[in-house]
Amino acid sequence: MNKPPDYSIILQAAERIKKYVHYTSVLTSQSIDNLFKANLFFKCENFQKAGVFKSRGAINAVFSLNNKELYRGVCTHSSGNHAAALARAASIRNTKAFIIMPENSSIVKIAAVKNYGGIITFCKPTLKSREEGLKKIIKQTNAVEIHPYNDYRIIAGQATVAKEFFEKVKNLDYIIAPIGGGGLISGTALSTFYISPKTKVIAVEPKQADDAYKSFYQGKFIPSINPNTIADGLLTSLGTLTFPIIQKYVNKIVTVSEAGIIQAMRLIWERMKVIIEPSSAVPLAALLENKFDFKNKRIGIIISGGNIDFNKFFKTNLF
Amino acid sequence: MNKPPDYSIILQAAERIKKYVHYTSVLTSQSIDNLFKANLFFKCENFQKAGVFKSRGAINAVFSLNNKELYRGVCTHSSGNHAAALARAASIRNTKAFIIMPENSSIVKIAAVKNYGGIITFCKPTLKSREEGLKKIIKQTNAVEIHPYNDYRIIAGQATVAKEFFEKVKNLDYIIAPIGGGGLISGTALSTFYISPKTKVIAVEPKQADDAYKSFYQGKFIPSINPNTIADGLLTSLGTLTFPIIQKYVNKIVTVSEAGIIQAMRLIWERMKVIIEPSSAVPLAALLENKFDFKNKRIGIIISGGNIDFNKFFKTNLF
Repeated sequence: MNKPPDYSIILQAAERIKKYVHYTSVLTSQSIDNLFKANLFFKCENFQKAGVFKSRGAINAVFSLNNKELYRGVCTHSSGNHAAALARAASIRNTKAFIIMPENSSIVKIAAVKNYGGIITFCKPTLKSREEGLKKIIKQTNAVEIHPYNDYRIIAGQATVAKEFFEKVKNLDYIIAPIGGGGLISGTALSTFYISPKTKVIAVEPKQADDAYKSFYQGKFIPSINPNTIADGLLTSLGTLTFPIIQKYVNKIVTVSEAGIIQAMRLIWERMKVIIEPSSAVPLAALLENKFDFKNKRIGIIISGGNIDFNKFFKTNLF
Repeated sequence: MNKPPDYSIILQAAERIKKYVHYTSVLTSQSIDNLFKANLFFKCENFQKAGVFKSRGAINAVFSLNNKELYRGVCTHSSGNHAAALARAASIRNTKAFIIMPENSSIVKIAAVKNYGGIITFCKPTLKSREEGLKKIIKQTNAVEIHPYNDYRIIAGQATVAKEFFEKVKNLDYIIAPIGGGGLISGTALSTFYISPKTKVIAVEPKQADDAYKSFYQGKFIPSINPNTIADGLLTSLGTLTFPIIQKYVNKIVTVSEAGIIQAMRLIWERMKVIIEPSSAVPLAALLENKFDFKNKRIGIIISGGNIDFNKFFKTNLF
């Protein structure tokens, strides 16, 4: 695939992955609606396989490979959700997943990768060490690299979240998702363009990891330097494939504070009784901080995942 | 109503409450099924209005009153979920709810009652003080007392949980619910008797509040003395109306440890990504502690509620 997924590619991805991922629920909360004086719909990818939307892209990418490629196995470097999702996808296809993980990755994430049969090589927690580790593995195994977001097969997989969302909820004024590397928001924006073009797409980013915000408004790629946010799924910077899609199809990028993210996460935990990870609270924080005109609007929010390391989390005394 | 609800009474209750409560989802988890080698179904009353199944009984009771009774208002003593559910039901019928609450009730629970317009009178945290406070209020206002569980209208309302459950999931070998005062399990056992008589009913109780277990197996009412459990919704003892229903229609009562409750709660939070309160983890703890023969069985578990006081909870460092 050498161009952004079009509608037929998104439909193919949906068909390819449907047996292996959940068609997730959309939840609503009257008390949250009352609070914001708007109609909010939450697409719950925290209920997705492996607890995160990344299962979609990983399945689509792995199931797109031919037998020769599959035989070699797949590989990536990741400290988090993509690693587990890729290991799961590989195990379903009976092939190997070689994962380069920083040695300071959380125990829970390491366990999830191992649980799906992923073969882990630890590295130093720097991008340089991760990339070198991956190069070495590819040299040894000839495995196919599946990048967490800078890959059109991944983007097409993530696009199925919004496709399902529009099937269940009509006439959304806005669709909102968090932005990290840009895989989810790229897929969301493409599905919106093809299926519900009147819906505006807003990406929300932590102020303390605002490479996408800067890149979008300055019109050139500006990577994050030492990003530091509780929304640990959004530390990565945009990719060469995601940035142009975002420039073309996303209407707006806004940033939110750490306090807003924590408050939004607590609101969802308490009112909706669902566990979401900090990265997934970022869109609702944009409403708490009045970052766009949402009153009386119909707003679709993508809850990206629910993977929390409780051992660590409960010690932080956040709430 | 002067006898236990029969099938037609349960159907009437379902009809009466349906506009005011959620028909809650049933969730499943492949990873939890794999863990126990059984098919588990979770009926999510944590997603219910006011975050708890008690909204059903409260609506059924309040909407069963005639205009003259309604005019006087309703009252109860409760430190928890019934108070909020009753205040909500009263507010929908535009009548008053007088709630006697122990002065050490959690701030979150007090706020919930106030949020629904309940009129709170605080008392000392003893049963004596609660009952005296209630007597005084009834004398002053002539309000109708709605007991949290020892009331057939309440039991009929709670019976609608299992009714919905059997509509969605067929051929359950077991249906399991926590037992405190016995309102939920009485309703569950009656619905099971009328709708799915082959399904066995198991009540699960914290070992540290085991009045129902003792009463059931010794054949006489034995109240808890100083019960002390993290499952704070299950501190109450059985009532004169619930105990005979339980004796007749419940197949088995088992008890579980505090450690088992905490482990079960964590399992549901982590694997299913839903917030449940400790009382709701009690049934799954019975599987963790091998309290009955569940291998390869189809098991319906009622998740009773999801009201957690996060301010307090996160300081306990439970997980």
